[in-house]
Amino acid sequence: MLTAQQIVETLASQIAPLDANLLTQARAHLDNLTKPVGSLGRLEDIAAQLFAIREGDLSRPLSRSVYVFAADHGITAEGVSAYPAEVTRQMVLNFLSGGAAINVLARLNHAEINVVDIGVDADLSEHAGLLQHKVRRGTRNMLREPAMSYEEITAALSAGIELAEIALAKGNNLIAIGEMGIGNTTAASTITAALTGKPAALVTGKGTGLDEAAHAHKCRVVEAVVELHRRENSSGNALEILRRVGGLEIAAMAGMILGAAQHKIAVIADGFISTAAAAIACTLVPNARAYLFAGHQSEEPGHRILLKHLGIQPVLSLNMRLGEGTGAVLAMPVIEAAINLYREMATFASAGISGATE
Amino acid sequence: MLTAQQIVETLASQIAPLDANLLTQARAHLDNLTKPVGSLGRLEDIAAQLFAIREGDLSRPLSRSVYVFAADHGITAEGVSAYPAEVTRQMVLNFLSGGAAINVLARLNHAEINVVDIGVDADLSEHAGLLQHKVRRGTRNMLREPAMSYEEITAALSAGIELAEIALAKGNNLIAIGEMGIGNTTAASTITAALTGKPAALVTGKGTGLDEAAHAHKCRVVEAVVELHRRENSSGNALEILRRVGGLEIAAMAGMILGAAQHKIAVIADGFISTAAAAIACTLVPNARAYLFAGHQSEEPGHRILLKHLGIQPVLSLNMRLGEGTGAVLAMPVIEAAINLYREMATFASAGISGATE
Repeated sequence: MLTAQQIVETLASQIAPLDANLLTQARAHLDNLTKPVGSLGRLEDIAAQLFAIREGDLSRPLSRSVYVFAADHGITAEGVSAYPAEVTRQMVLNFLSGGAAINVLARLNHAEINVVDIGVDADLSEHAGLLQHKVRRGTRNMLREPAMSYEEITAALSAGIELAEIALAKGNNLIAIGEMGIGNTTAASTITAALTGKPAALVTGKGTGLDEAAHAHKCRVVEAVVELHRRENSSGNALEILRRVGGLEIAAMAGMILGAAQHKIAVIADGFISTAAAAIACTLVPNARAYLFAGHQSEEPGHRILLKHLGIQPVLSLNMRLGEGTGAVLAMPVIEAAINLYREMATFASAGISGATE
Repeated sequence: MLTAQQIVETLASQIAPLDANLLTQARAHLDNLTKPVGSLGRLEDIAAQLFAIREGDLSRPLSRSVYVFAADHGITAEGVSAYPAEVTRQMVLNFLSGGAAINVLARLNHAEINVVDIGVDADLSEHAGLLQHKVRRGTRNMLREPAMSYEEITAALSAGIELAEIALAKGNNLIAIGEMGIGNTTAASTITAALTGKPAALVTGKGTGLDEAAHAHKCRVVEAVVELHRRENSSGNALEILRRVGGLEIAAMAGMILGAAQHKIAVIADGFISTAAAAIACTLVPNARAYLFAGHQSEEPGHRILLKHLGIQPVLSLNMRLGEGTGAVLAMPVIEAAINLYREMATFASAGISGATE
């Protein structure tokens, strides 16, 4: 069996940078459209990036999908969340019955919803609508030991890569990545601290709604976890960060992001947790960043730090902090708008419009 | 014939504040949905505001429309724009043939597009698809005299109010307000300076793309215009600001915003120019603000100042500076998402999900 490191190395050799000529060609086309140069702002950046990702062909209709990865976290034993851990399982059932926020947004935006059990601490094997990829019933408590074994991180990464292959086979060309997992903002905070070197107090937020005292406790837990594993992973290897202080859903999302980049599928990260997965993926394979969009800027303070670390500007900024892929799916209409503007607007010449005076 | 002042006073008596009980009821419903309290951020604010605007009934489907008001500006004689004035007429023809950015976005978002000639400096009377409300072929040069006469501002305001009545008759419940008019960022800047007291240098941007020298010249023109009319309108009356340093499209947009508020139709302002119209409307009738959304934050520096002055947060922030209603229509899917989340999400009780621990 391949190790996680070998899997990543194989992917790295297959993820190509965007073709600079295509980016130039996209900019030239955008500058000919009937609007002042650059006046569509970020929409022009989005259109150019997609034009290059899709190798110069924006004519194929969007095929949208959202993947929601659910898993539990051993660190919840330390009292880091406002909600009990069983809410992970309960929310998975809510996703399957169509009542969660992500269901509403996926319906509205014509995105197929895929719910993945990658590590929920419950037996959900009888649910036919659920993609069954459970690696383990929740991670280990990372305050005591690494969150995952070497086998577990490999299995979780591989599940994400496999889902990217399925998405490719389905014809998906725009994928949103979301998650559900009580305790997973704590894992995202520890990853952020480990990747960026920022102190726990800056990267740790209130999650689903902690009060001041509980937030202070969460900060201390994050600090202790980071401290423990920094000693044992002094080189700062990103896969080892993921294994020690990550989560099964974070590993699977990192795998899916890399798999999507390999297949030239555009990926939209959601909030803090999926962006932590993206940050791991882009540390492992810097070329993957070109296939990535950030759906929104969430309320979690560590999310802003990670987006800056990645050098990616979020599409939306609506003070959300829900996860599930909600912010990523909500960005889909903006991305669709960017494509349609690119494809459908008249040019100065075709519309007979005067240019700017020099 | 009624004066503009009398028209506004009549409207003011008919624009009701939102019902505080409905806002409270909306918040209670949102807090019962299967998500942490407040975790949908701005989407919750949008949903609550719309619930109150629509008097507690979000069940009627959205009926979307965008109104694009086109007019020319006498101030273009002073060399304040990167584009020649005939581009206003050319772009109106582009709107009518479906090739402009707003056409693409309106099609994508199921918004009916209405193009209004309120003051284009050209004979466009033969164009059947154009709403014919021309008051005058462009405003006067406000560096020399007031932009409009008393009769002209009354006619432009009245046209906007009449269009709101037509929108009501059509069943529109979500209206975007946009414009096209070479020179109109200069008018928006003078209005902003006059309403807020900010210096010309802070409220004057590069419009469609001025270079440094041309921008410095535009700042001097704005300063001189504001200075001239401040002397002659020392009380700072908002209607008189609009008449002296506004534009025909700005007056019509202000009228339509007030008319929409009167009929409890939600209105989305677009960029700097339509927000200048909204600022005038809300100065005249403060209750109108409750019916207003800001579609986006544009690149024009004065836009940020006006939004802060109005106390309204923009839905999107994509570095756009195009006008035409593009930023307003682009915000429609976010508003639709807020409504659907409000209506379709499961509650904690219905989904059997545990609440937060205390």
